[in-house]
Amino acid sequence: MSQRSAGPELLRLIDLIAKLPGLGPRSARRVALHLLKRNDTLLKPLAEALAEAGAKIQKCQVCGNFDTVQPCAVCQMPGRDDGILCVVEDVPDLWALERGDAFRGRYHVLGGALSAIDGIGPEDLGIASLVARVEAGGVREVILALNATVDGQTTAHYVADLLAGKGVDVTRLAHGVPVGGELDHLDDGTLAAALRSRRGV
Amino acid sequence: MSQRSAGPELLRLIDLIAKLPGLGPRSARRVALHLLKRNDTLLKPLAEALAEAGAKIQKCQVCGNFDTVQPCAVCQMPGRDDGILCVVEDVPDLWALERGDAFRGRYHVLGGALSAIDGIGPEDLGIASLVARVEAGGVREVILALNATVDGQTTAHYVADLLAGKGVDVTRLAHGVPVGGELDHLDDGTLAAALRSRRGV
Repeated sequence: MSQRSAGPELLRLIDLIAKLPGLGPRSARRVALHLLKRNDTLLKPLAEALAEAGAKIQKCQVCGNFDTVQPCAVCQMPGRDDGILCVVEDVPDLWALERGDAFRGRYHVLGGALSAIDGIGPEDLGIASLVARVEAGGVREVILALNATVDGQTTAHYVADLLAGKGVDVTRLAHGVPVGGELDHLDDGTLAAALRSRRGV
Repeated sequence: MSQRSAGPELLRLIDLIAKLPGLGPRSARRVALHLLKRNDTLLKPLAEALAEAGAKIQKCQVCGNFDTVQPCAVCQMPGRDDGILCVVEDVPDLWALERGDAFRGRYHVLGGALSAIDGIGPEDLGIASLVARVEAGGVREVILALNATVDGQTTAHYVADLLAGKGVDVTRLAHGVPVGGELDHLDDGTLAAALRSRRGV
């Protein structure tokens, strides 16, 4: 938009919103307008929540989760099994596992997956810190809960190779039919994997 | 996500982001994470831009545009024709027309369109203020630059009826082939309208 129809404050706000994932210039204008129309109910609370998050939330130095405490609440939580480390690509994966409430060990967030296309190598991820945690002792099993994508599985193989011979079991999540999933809608690879890993009832 | 894996500050931030148009809980988590990873380069600038916009930007009392000055920069701009009012549904439409740089009159933002489904009646829109501007005199023409949707055209008819007999020309945007548009990809209604409004070359 031209400088004439919107002031620099508004242009700057729209530029910043357009940098968020999944938003472009057009949707950024829509979001900015939505906010301006709801100054007291949404814009100001969001500005305050952002400022508070920016000031208080930090990356956990142990696992890589985001929290206001250091180390994070999950790392500090008593009664979890320190002997099992669940390795995830990013923080939302950790959140997803915690929502499921099925895992009671500790986490390690890599911060992404190896990707030749995006130029992401082992040094860009929390792989050295994972090896250090394993070498520090006390870990029996490392679960590689990485995405079932090419990059995720490449990363899983790379990490598994690094951990070989360090005295820990390295496991991965099972492939199979999602709970509630219809066979008709599954891809052939998932169906074949589910068939190979069939179990007695 | 459970209270255990993310603190209340983060949950509140995600809740607020999820209220933005086009975003849901899942994309809100992605946006929040994207922001937390870019604390200094994106999160803090965005928090500041939002706070500044919330404090400074207000609705223009004349036309309904958003700006830091009252009346807005477009209303204050010298050399524009006060005799022509361009009526738009919302502020992004005004911005779009200003980007095109093809209109040198003044604007009037309705703030939406009549909609039986959404329960939006004439009293919810800036229609009374439009009639007041016309009745105050000095306006020769009102251009109804409303969306070519059912709601937009309903609103255009309603406004045109209200302005009938008030001594102003009421016009609407032309229908036709978009510049750069391919005939093959146009809907039949647009093609028919373009044919009916054909011009000598």
